[in-house]
Amino acid sequence: MATLNDREIVLLKGKNFAHLATLNEDGSAHVAPLWIDVEDDGGHVLVNSAVGRKKDRNIRRDPRVVVSVHDQDDPYRWTAISGTVVSIETGDEAESHIDLLNQKYHEGERWEYVPGSVRVLYRIRPDNVVGEWE
Amino acid sequence: MATLNDREIVLLKGKNFAHLATLNEDGSAHVAPLWIDVEDDGGHVLVNSAVGRKKDRNIRRDPRVVVSVHDQDDPYRWTAISGTVVSIETGDEAESHIDLLNQKYHEGERWEYVPGSVRVLYRIRPDNVVGEWE
Repeated sequence: MATLNDREIVLLKGKNFAHLATLNEDGSAHVAPLWIDVEDDGGHVLVNSAVGRKKDRNIRRDPRVVVSVHDQDDPYRWTAISGTVVSIETGDEAESHIDLLNQKYHEGERWEYVPGSVRVLYRIRPDNVVGEWE
Repeated sequence: MATLNDREIVLLKGKNFAHLATLNEDGSAHVAPLWIDVEDDGGHVLVNSAVGRKKDRNIRRDPRVVVSVHDQDDPYRWTAISGTVVSIETGDEAESHIDLLNQKYHEGERWEYVPGSVRVLYRIRPDNVVGEWE
């Protein structure tokens, strides 16, 4: 398990957008941007999605992921975290976590609820971390 | 082969930063941000790297890639292009292409030359394109 340093934690705590790579059944990669979060102590990267989406189906089949994120204000500050999804949770914790993310990105205003969607919270154990800080 | 629409071409032509996913030997994904370009007619996505880098070694082994990019000014405009690298070129074309990218991103000023690096130009055929435009 890799340890995230303070700059990486700040990057993930900031209003930046991550690109999450998961693995398709045919072995190709799937990538899409999404909101990002990290545990306060930098232990696990936190991602929130909905049950049945491509990334959800991929993670349940193969837990190897990459989170790549650049600073929205300075794109030459970035980190790419290769990791493993170690927990997948639905229910209250996943629902309140998406509310927290909504608060972070839009002060609670912009979030558009998708009727019937079931939120999922993934905890990612960082295995390898690279990046650049100009 | 998928066709890129005008919005996607504008996104790739703009001063935005893409995240390129390639495939490691063990089947996991590798992702890192980088400069991005596209042929004027939207035919192929263009990426420039250096011989011997991780992404270069990965692409030569498995040409399946994903280019995921969000608008630096409006992150909710984004596209993720799954594609196949159909040509890998070094030499004059790759060298002048990195100069073009430097011009686009830094008006020719910021580029730091890495001594001894051999530039490579990859042409990516888009196979599947997704995205959102709020």
